[in-house]
Amino acid sequence: MTIDTAIAELVSFLGDRLSRSKPDLDAHGASETHFAPAPPDAVAWPETVEDVSQILQLCHAHGCPVIAFGAGTALEGHTSAIRGGVTLDFARMDQVLSIHQGDMAAVVQPGITREALNRELRATGLFFPVDPGANASLGGMAATRASGTTSVRYGTIRENILALEVVLADGRVIRTGSRARKSAAGYDLTALFLGSEGTLGIITELTVKLQGQPEAITAGVCAFDAIDAAVDAVVAVIQMGIPMARIEFVDAEAVRAVNAYSGTELPERPHLFVEFHGTETGAAEDANRFAEVVADFGASDVRLATKTEDRSALWTARHHAYWACLALRQGATAVVTDVCVPISRLAEAVEETRADIAASPIPGPILGHVGDGNFHAILLVDPQTPNDLVEAKRLAGRMADRALRLGGTVTGEHGIGMGKLGYMQAEHGEGWAVMGEIKRALDPDSILNPGKLVPGD
Amino acid sequence: MTIDTAIAELVSFLGDRLSRSKPDLDAHGASETHFAPAPPDAVAWPETVEDVSQILQLCHAHGCPVIAFGAGTALEGHTSAIRGGVTLDFARMDQVLSIHQGDMAAVVQPGITREALNRELRATGLFFPVDPGANASLGGMAATRASGTTSVRYGTIRENILALEVVLADGRVIRTGSRARKSAAGYDLTALFLGSEGTLGIITELTVKLQGQPEAITAGVCAFDAIDAAVDAVVAVIQMGIPMARIEFVDAEAVRAVNAYSGTELPERPHLFVEFHGTETGAAEDANRFAEVVADFGASDVRLATKTEDRSALWTARHHAYWACLALRQGATAVVTDVCVPISRLAEAVEETRADIAASPIPGPILGHVGDGNFHAILLVDPQTPNDLVEAKRLAGRMADRALRLGGTVTGEHGIGMGKLGYMQAEHGEGWAVMGEIKRALDPDSILNPGKLVPGD
Repeated sequence: MTIDTAIAELVSFLGDRLSRSKPDLDAHGASETHFAPAPPDAVAWPETVEDVSQILQLCHAHGCPVIAFGAGTALEGHTSAIRGGVTLDFARMDQVLSIHQGDMAAVVQPGITREALNRELRATGLFFPVDPGANASLGGMAATRASGTTSVRYGTIRENILALEVVLADGRVIRTGSRARKSAAGYDLTALFLGSEGTLGIITELTVKLQGQPEAITAGVCAFDAIDAAVDAVVAVIQMGIPMARIEFVDAEAVRAVNAYSGTELPERPHLFVEFHGTETGAAEDANRFAEVVADFGASDVRLATKTEDRSALWTARHHAYWACLALRQGATAVVTDVCVPISRLAEAVEETRADIAASPIPGPILGHVGDGNFHAILLVDPQTPNDLVEAKRLAGRMADRALRLGGTVTGEHGIGMGKLGYMQAEHGEGWAVMGEIKRALDPDSILNPGKLVPGD
Repeated sequence: MTIDTAIAELVSFLGDRLSRSKPDLDAHGASETHFAPAPPDAVAWPETVEDVSQILQLCHAHGCPVIAFGAGTALEGHTSAIRGGVTLDFARMDQVLSIHQGDMAAVVQPGITREALNRELRATGLFFPVDPGANASLGGMAATRASGTTSVRYGTIRENILALEVVLADGRVIRTGSRARKSAAGYDLTALFLGSEGTLGIITELTVKLQGQPEAITAGVCAFDAIDAAVDAVVAVIQMGIPMARIEFVDAEAVRAVNAYSGTELPERPHLFVEFHGTETGAAEDANRFAEVVADFGASDVRLATKTEDRSALWTARHHAYWACLALRQGATAVVTDVCVPISRLAEAVEETRADIAASPIPGPILGHVGDGNFHAILLVDPQTPNDLVEAKRLAGRMADRALRLGGTVTGEHGIGMGKLGYMQAEHGEGWAVMGEIKRALDPDSILNPGKLVPGD
């Protein structure tokens, strides 16, 4: 068999950098969420770009699938080896290669996690701002076009990667971009690989933009009677140019979950959690202006804090929200949905989703990155009740359809993987065919994460 | 001939929306700069996306080149019809189709100019922030991945386009992106078309991000003894997170030109021009902190202004710089270079360029978007002295080589066109071949702006 032939050759090349042990295969074929296990035939731990290039040359010659694997935090089954093959685990390529203080940039390997990178940066006064919550690897974040709570201020991964080194399906190594802040020199290959989910090339190095660590942070929290007032308030704040570093929405059900879980006593109504980064006076001024604006939209229980421990206390509800939601239903696992709509349609999207979930037998608190129009329902599925997963998928499907109807996208930040493939035609129409044409140009035998992202693959 | 056959069919379809008159052909084959005229065989003025789709279907069937044309402000000969064919002039597709106040977005046709768009937005409290200087069309700005003086704060066109409608080489119409602020749904086709210079598809509609008009603007200017101190000061300001809306560098020779042209009496040393957008107190606080920081780097003659007329007076030197430079040499035309390097190498790049020009017979003041590491030498060429253009190209070539040696790019914002094609291999290596593979996948007969951007085309 072609995969077996490829792996036989890989064994002799990689030695103990390759494993066929069942625990290793299972660990790399498992999903964080509800997708069926799909282990690869082998797991390799490349240590250099030359390793990756050599592996791809061999796999290309034999038509053997290759799946890139970072921290394994994907929520949509991105790394499932649905056609077998070799999973490349980047755990041994996890170094910061250089920090360019004057350029506010760092060159890193794909296996480094976000938290590890920021630990290494601590003494420099700089930080890497994209924060998807999970301690994902940088390579994985790049491959899935990740974002998160800080994107309203610092942008998504798309705005924070300057350059990539990528190994193509046939083993060729290319470099896209540079440490220069911008370029108008031809097709934006960097952007093309960001979000390509390992189907166009394997990222082996990233040049990331860094930000100055804020001198001061002010945090805030406030409650609203209804979702639309909260969203309208956020839109007003954005239009006034008050720079929020984070602006998170937590619905009444999620607040109830947090009160039960953390012993807080927040009013069980929709809440906004906000954070400002700046100078001491600047961040405080921004927070005070925020408080004035949201008051005009009926906000109550507005509280602001500047000291670290007070800020942490204020944000407890948001920080614990995911675990608090899971605890709402003992033994439950979560189907975490992820849609993003134009901000003007966000209140409508959340309210319709809220009503949908209320009419369903399963609980589903809602959290959102309201500045981006992106929100998640944490649908709580009892593994002992098979119909729960069916119901969760039905609700998720209605959320995706609704997002498209309202002019949005079926995924704001979690990506396509296995879970959203069925919506690509509806979202992109003929554009999806164009993605397939690009895939076939760069990976004609479809060895890179096959069966994902593009049509007819 | 295939082009003639195509045009015969276009004539019957387009009627008076097509011209073959010599003045029309010449106007669309001319270059803003020094490139030889290369007129098309016909000029069409499409009025709808259906027109564009129909034109492309016909041209595709006959292998007739199609060149998109916006405001004609490109500096690198992007719209030269070097293989003849039909130029599509988007002057009649220049409308704002909708303004989405709550989403801070607008949907526009490609022929609208930046200034016209901002006039239409004036009453909304919003504006489109990308400012390349020239009154370019939005379609052209998108196709060339334009940026300019405000990119240090608001980003380039890449960060300010949410969605596109694009007609492909075979006439298919696709939509990329949506009005949602972000998406992780598959390949970033929007980014792929931005900067593709009309070689992958023709943009027929753009959804652009808007920004809140700043409540207050504070401007500043200061002088330095040497270029490196000015650059170091800017890096320090950026790292402190003081948000500059514009930060422009003007070298001593350009200051000399402005003093002669505008009667100003600026010290003939390198200058920085800066602008802050925010609240009254915020913008003023930012400006004062800027003044403190640059003083630490030896800045002198620091002046700040808030009132409109005072700000205009302060920025006169920058606003008039291009014309002042041209006036340095009577009857001269300019070869405007455009390189971008990592900011840490900017002082070195500017100083070496300065020395190169000083040793050459032609004058060349330098202006730069220092926050991006992007700068231009205005090389003044006497059309009566044939060797001048040779010398300007030699200097420009050395600038491009130097930019690559310092880890930058041969074009920060002007694009490739005819002028930079010779540097693509050096900048991108095998990545350039990948661009060619994408081009062949989407436009196998190379009818879209043929002979540009990709190898072997």
